[in-house]
Formats: sequence, C-alpha cells, structure tokens
Amino acid sequence: MFEHVDPGKKLNQKEYDRVVPELKEGLGELQRRARDAGMPIIVVFEGWDTVGMSELVNKFILPLDPRGFQIHPITAPTQEERLRPFLWRFMVRIPARGRIAVFDRSWYFRSLARAVESKEDDARLAWREIAEFEEMLSDDGYLIMKFFLHIGKKEHKKRLEKYRDQDLDRCAISTADVEFFRKYDKMVPLIEEMIESTDREHAPWTIVEAEDNKFASAKILTTSVRMLEYGLMKMGGRNQTFMDSNPLIKGGQMFNSSRGGVDLGKKLSTSEYRSKLDKLQKRVGELQCTFNLMNIPTIVLFEGWDAAGKGGAIQRLTAELNPRGYEVVPIGVPTSDEKERHYLWRFYQKLPPAGHMRIFDRSWYGRVLVERIEGFCSTEEWKRAYNEINAFEEMLVDNGTVLVKMWLEIDKDMQLKRFQERDIDPMKQWKITEDDWRNRDKWDFYGRAVDEMLFRTSTKAAPWTIVESNDKYYSRVKTLETIVQAMESKLSKKDSK
Amino acid sequence: MFEHVDPGKKLNQKEYDRVVPELKEGLGELQRRARDAGMPIIVVFEGWDTVGMSELVNKFILPLDPRGFQIHPITAPTQEERLRPFLWRFMVRIPARGRIAVFDRSWYFRSLARAVESKEDDARLAWREIAEFEEMLSDDGYLIMKFFLHIGKKEHKKRLEKYRDQDLDRCAISTADVEFFRKYDKMVPLIEEMIESTDREHAPWTIVEAEDNKFASAKILTTSVRMLEYGLMKMGGRNQTFMDSNPLIKGGQMFNSSRGGVDLGKKLSTSEYRSKLDKLQKRVGELQCTFNLMNIPTIVLFEGWDAAGKGGAIQRLTAELNPRGYEVVPIGVPTSDEKERHYLWRFYQKLPPAGHMRIFDRSWYGRVLVERIEGFCSTEEWKRAYNEINAFEEMLVDNGTVLVKMWLEIDKDMQLKRFQERDIDPMKQWKITEDDWRNRDKWDFYGRAVDEMLFRTSTKAAPWTIVESNDKYYSRVKTLETIVQAMESKLSKKDSK
Repeated sequence: MFEHVDPGKKLNQKEYDRVVPELKEGLGELQRRARDAGMPIIVVFEGWDTVGMSELVNKFILPLDPRGFQIHPITAPTQEERLRPFLWRFMVRIPARGRIAVFDRSWYFRSLARAVESKEDDARLAWREIAEFEEMLSDDGYLIMKFFLHIGKKEHKKRLEKYRDQDLDRCAISTADVEFFRKYDKMVPLIEEMIESTDREHAPWTIVEAEDNKFASAKILTTSVRMLEYGLMKMGGRNQTFMDSNPLIKGGQMFNSSRGGVDLGKKLSTSEYRSKLDKLQKRVGELQCTFNLMNIPTIVLFEGWDAAGKGGAIQRLTAELNPRGYEVVPIGVPTSDEKERHYLWRFYQKLPPAGHMRIFDRSWYGRVLVERIEGFCSTEEWKRAYNEINAFEEMLVDNGTVLVKMWLEIDKDMQLKRFQERDIDPMKQWKITEDDWRNRDKWDFYGRAVDEMLFRTSTKAAPWTIVESNDKYYSRVKTLETIVQAMESKLSKKDSK
Repeated sequence: MFEHVDPGKKLNQKEYDRVVPELKEGLGELQRRARDAGMPIIVVFEGWDTVGMSELVNKFILPLDPRGFQIHPITAPTQEERLRPFLWRFMVRIPARGRIAVFDRSWYFRSLARAVESKEDDARLAWREIAEFEEMLSDDGYLIMKFFLHIGKKEHKKRLEKYRDQDLDRCAISTADVEFFRKYDKMVPLIEEMIESTDREHAPWTIVEAEDNKFASAKILTTSVRMLEYGLMKMGGRNQTFMDSNPLIKGGQMFNSSRGGVDLGKKLSTSEYRSKLDKLQKRVGELQCTFNLMNIPTIVLFEGWDAAGKGGAIQRLTAELNPRGYEVVPIGVPTSDEKERHYLWRFYQKLPPAGHMRIFDRSWYGRVLVERIEGFCSTEEWKRAYNEINAFEEMLVDNGTVLVKMWLEIDKDMQLKRFQERDIDPMKQWKITEDDWRNRDKWDFYGRAVDEMLFRTSTKAAPWTIVESNDKYYSRVKTLETIVQAMESKLSKKDSK
C-alpha cells in the first residue's frame, strides 16, 4: 500500500497561496451547511509520531467556527478507561448532530499499540470492532474522515535524531510515543493491515504525504471539502457530479497517487529480451503443468491503459502453455443477463476450475474504472466495490487460488504514439476506435480512478504489481516474471507445509 | 433462542381455510409487483431433516407464477464444487432482477455440516463470510428471506423412528441427512449460534414452528407477504405503516412468540417467600462485595410490562446492597443532548465503573419496544438495532461485565387488576398515568415487539430470562435467584482459570 506512495510530495508557496485560501473558505462554508443540516462529523488524525500532527490539526481547524467543534487529544488510557471496553472512551466523546469532533490520535492508536506488543490477534479483533463501530455511526448519519499522516523512513530517522538532539521529550514528543513508532520497518506492515481492515465506503482512509507541511495541509483541506460535499449531497439526495468540476479540486495532485514513483524509462535490449523471454515462457509452461497436477487454480489479471500492451503480453504468456489448461477471458460490456445480477456474478461464472489458469483481459476492476468514470454505476456502488472486491479476492486466495494482478502503466505521450501508429497501420486499425480517443480525453479522471483502485485494493492477500510498459520488451518480461514468481512462491509455501 | 419457542403450534382446518387463500392471493400479487419493480428475491429454507421440507417448499411456490422462480435443491457438493470457494455454487445461482430463487437447503446447510464435524472455527468463518455475502447482495437490492423449520426433540425422535420403519432411505430421506441431524441436543446450540451470527436487518431469520404442517405453511406465507411488502415499500419509498393494518396478518399468532410456553401460574407462599428472600438478599450483598474487590462490573437490566413489578423487584434487590457500590438507572425519555447523538451514546455514559453494579430500570431495549411502537424511530432504525445491541452487549461481556437481562411477564388481566388497584389507592396513584392506559390499548403490538426482541437478542453472550410475575413473591425471588446465579457462575469461571 505504501510502496508507491511518495511521502515527499511538495507544494510551493505560490501554489499554496493560490489554492489554500479558497479551500479554507470552502471548509468554513461547508461546516455551516453541515450544522444547518444536522450532520455530525468525526475527523480522525493518525500518523507517524514525528510528523508534526498538532500543527496540521491546528491548520485544519483554523477555518472552522470554534463553537462548532471540539478537539480530543488521545493519549494513553486512564486506569478507569482501561477497565472499560476499548471503545468506551471514544463513544462517550462522539459529537452531537451538526457538530465536529476532531480526534488527535484515536481508537486506531490504541489498536496499533496492541499490535506492536505482539498481541496481533487482539489488534485484529479490535479492527473488526472498530469497523463495526464506524458502520454503526455511519448508519446513524455520522460522517467519518480518517487521515494517516505519512513520512518516509529516511525523513523519520532524521526527525527522530533532531528531536533527540533538541531534547524535546518533555514537550510535544513524549518518550513513550517515540518508543512506539521507532521501529519503522516493523510498523509499516501493521499500519498497512490496520488501514486495509478498516477502509470502508462509509469511513475511507486518506493517506496524506506529510513530509512537506504545505502539501499535507492542502491535501487535508481538499479531502475534507470533497468528503463534506459528498456527505451533504448524500443527505440531500442532490446530483453528484459537481465534485469533479469544483475548481478547488480540479488540479488532481491532491489525490492519492499510487503511480508516483514509477520509472517508465525502464528498458530491455532485444537480445536481453529474447533470452529472458525464452526462459520465462518455458518456466511458466512447466509451472502450468505442475499446478494442473496439484489442482491449484490460477488467475492472471491484466488491467492497464488502452494501448499499454495487454494483448501482446498475453500472447507472450500463452506461447508455451498447454491450451487445454488455460483460457483467456476478455471482459467487455456485460450481457443483459449479466446486467440483471450483482456485478460480481459474471466473474464467479468465469473462475478457473481446479488446476486451470484463467487470464483476464480486463476484469472486475471495471466497476471502479470505466463504470465509475462513465457513470454506469452510482457513486455509492463504486465506493462500496473496493471492499467487496477485497473480500472476493481474499476468498479466492483463501481457497488456494494463485491470483496475479498487474497494472500496465504507460504515459500519455506513449499512448498517443501508439494510437497514431495504429491509425496508419492497416493491420492494426481495427484495434483503435472512437471510444479510445474519447477515453484518452478523460486521462486525468481515469488516472485518479486508477490511483484510488491501486491504493484501496492492493491488499496483503492480493497485491497489485505495476508494470512499467513504455518499453514493450521490458513490460512483457516483467509480466512473465511476476507470474512465475507468484506461482513459485505458492509452490514453496505448499512444500513447507 | 429455541427455549421458549413452541414447535407444536397448531392451526385448525377452519382457520387455515379462512386465512390461507388470501395469503396465497397476496403472495401471487406481490410476486408480480416485485417482477415489475425488478426486485430479485432469495428464499432460503433450512430445518431439521424430518420436518418435511419439500412439502412446505411446494406449498410456498404453489401461488407463484412458475415462469418467475427457480428451485435449487442443495445436496452435498460435487467434486468440482468442493474445489471452489464455499459460496461459489450459490453465487452462480442467484436470481436475475425480478425473479425468485428458492433454496431448498442452502449455504447454511454446508456450514452446519462443518460445525458438526467439530470444525467449529471453520463454521464460524463461514458464518462471517455468509453475513458478508448476504450484505453484499442486499446492498445491491436483493431481498433475502430465511426460514428455519423447527420441530421439538420428541417429535423429531418419533419421526426418525417412523422413517426408519418405513425404510424411506432411498426416497426423500437420505441416510446422510438422517445421520447429520440425528444428535438433536448437539445440534441445537450449533443452530442457535448459526442463526445468531447471521441474523441481520437485511436478511432476518424466521423460525417456523413446523410440527403442524398447516401452521408452518401459513406462517411461511404470512412472513413472505410481510417481507415482500416491506421490501417493495423500501424500494418505492412509500409510507410504512400499512403492514400492521393488513388484514392478512392482523391475527398476530403467526409471529414468533418467545413467551408461548411461560407458566404464569407459578406462585410462592408467604413463608417460602420470606425465607428465600432473606437468604438471597444476604447472598447478593456478599457477592457485591466480592465483585467490588475483584473489579468486576455488573449490569442488572429490568424490562417488563407496566405494573409487572419492576420497582418492587429492584427494591428487594437493593435491600442489602452497599449503597456506595450500586446505582439504579431509570431510563425515561431521552434528553435533548441524548437525542442529538446515536441512541446507544447515553447508555455508554451510564455503564458501571469497574467493581460497581448498575441496575437499569428499562434500558437500551426501548429502541425496539416503545420507540418502535410509537414511531419514535424509523423501521430501518429499529430493525438495525437488534444487531447493534447484540454487538454492544457482546462487547460488554467480553470486557468482563456480568450482564443480567430480565423480562417481567404478566398477563393482560393482571395488568388491569393492578392498574385498578393503583387508581383507587392514594399512595399508588402517582404510579399510573394516562400513558399507561394508552400503552395498554396497544398490548398486542407491544407483545409482538417483545417477542421479536426476546427472539433476536437472546444470545449466547447475553441471554434473556423471562420472569413469571403474576405472583409478586415468585417474581421477586426469581429475579434475585437469576442475579445470584449469574454472579456465581462468573466467579466459578474466574476460579477455574
């Protein structure tokens, strides 16, 4: 989840001055509308201890009417609180309708503490309870926003040293806190699991890249404005498209970008390509045979931009496969039979039998990509889908399926180049349609949807691999490598049992 | 859960002929409306193997247009199905919009099989997955009805013998099935746990008393009609009060009655009363002291009809208690502060500190009693509350709280007698108001709400005790006995650790 988040994102003073005053004004106005509508709001701040949380919380509340909110700084529980159910001290602090409660650290902080003390089962139980708690509040009309303030390992270390040198222990940073978060590498997977288990349509997480204070502050404000607008719209049942046209958030850089750190310059020479491809194709053929004997089903799922090279990659993958044991499943517009049922139904129909491989050329992720962007489903439906898809995939993996998910990433220039090639090549003209050009116009909207998809559905059970695909050779080899790795890792897990 | 269900309920031919034709007509009409509205419907039948399920399923589908539904008889999974995720074979069978899928046994059957094979953790995981699966479908607009066809132990044994004598193994009853359900006493708690973990607002269970075929059939029809009306109303957003005025269901005997087998004739003589009361009061005082030292919190919760004797019982309970360690919490109309938040908030405020006892004179159950009947909350809100309350109470019990829930039951004549006594006794006149008489007029509505409450919230973690209260002596002694038992059982669990 964090692997492609760039915590060092920056906003320069000029941009900050251009965007933030409007956001502040917007937030103040939305607070008043929420008060009039009687909507209670819960804002949760969590994050690394050296992130400067208090300062960011302060910047968040500045535009708010102080009569309308309350800050709850959460530290270690008192003796009395320890003797109560874990969620008790938070439930007694929930806001009244029309008011805002800001939690400077929250129920999540305590659950992480448990996880760190190696009581991971306790922590998992707590996350289930938290998910139920938030659902209960959301059912009752509470709007819940959750921010995780993220910084990189290097920066974290640097700040820790700085704080130590300044001996600030008695001030903002308590010894206990520093102790708690000091083991960066140990904490990362715990935080990821926490976020995965509690990320829901009605209480979504936002990761805030927080090394640069200005960027972080602007992202918190942007997200709050969007979520408040969405919440008020849901309450009032009004049209839901105005968010994307709101000038405050048109820029796009405030959204989670899971593809930020991807290096599209990666390349392979023809000779490297030939030799690697050959070996990998043989290996994947052998593995197919082994998996068939072992009754293990495999799903290889390709998503990516138009002209990113999905078709070519699939051709190379299947070159050495036994055609009796695999099937390519192209996913297009649903049939009327499929439209008549839950959207996951058609994918259940197409799951591989034991020992078989199914290669999905596009997949159930259409729900949160094309269906989202083109308005083929409602906002609530695609927001709900992340969690539904995660549960679906976890079920597949629990059942023994090897599931490989790849996103083929190219940039906009490369797409244009390939579109133009297709347009003039009579052999390839069939590959390009008016629709492709239309989708290209919506590149930025699709990009945001892709980022959110990668962020919300890259789970422990079923992680995404981003395949740098500006160079077709590199792309094809990496897809094959990814598949071989996933299958071999399954084998070694089986062996060690 | 089953302890107060009377599986022997009967409907005579005359009543049957009076009520069933109308129900059938209603069901056929509602099927057409559901088809036009595009609502997909899933009907699940589960139950004891000797219950004659096929016959009841047949009676259910008779009024339906055969082009609009499909029956799926579920037996042991095929080899192919075994290799897929557990829910796969059910998901591929979900109905299209506007159609009905009837499952003659279902996903629950398989999960019970796992539980019986002592793989209870597997079964629990399956129940969680099932709950998510049903929620996902319900979010997508599916209406889900689930019937458990129940018969008593005696009848079960009788039928098993009859079947064996007739050697029907090769026909309707397979050996495997009989094997599976033979151990009645072992199955009951498993079935109860299954129902508890999967009973939700959007997919509620109905227990059908099924020893008498006519009664069972009528109850299935009644419930279906009510649920379809509710589902269509939710889709169309229409007014929701017409269900209770529907002549088809006015009778009331088709509802779950948790108080069916209660014997209100139970009595104590004055001398028995004095001697028992004295001992119990002393004992509860000792236990209070022990629990205080051990930091264990206790909640004693009284619900019951007006004039059932809650006040008197509480007086007897507190007679020997140390006033520093207990508090009586009378629950009335919520304050404006309380109305402004989630309805459970005010009860969080009043939870006992460690080592203390809080005695609730009425409680959070008001949500599903007075608030339901008087329309102080929406139908969705009180339907959701059962599950919220179960989670809340489980949390309390997990945290070490002793939770005693008692329903004080009297009959309508006894209430009248006590009201009249109060009316003429100047010392008691304050106890009776216009509201009490008004509530009395709604006795039947309250009765149904009480039955549903007892049924849906009597959980393993927090069971209800029904206290027969026509005789005040008997009632007071039983409340004290119940409390002492619960506290002593907590102590013995602590000791054995």
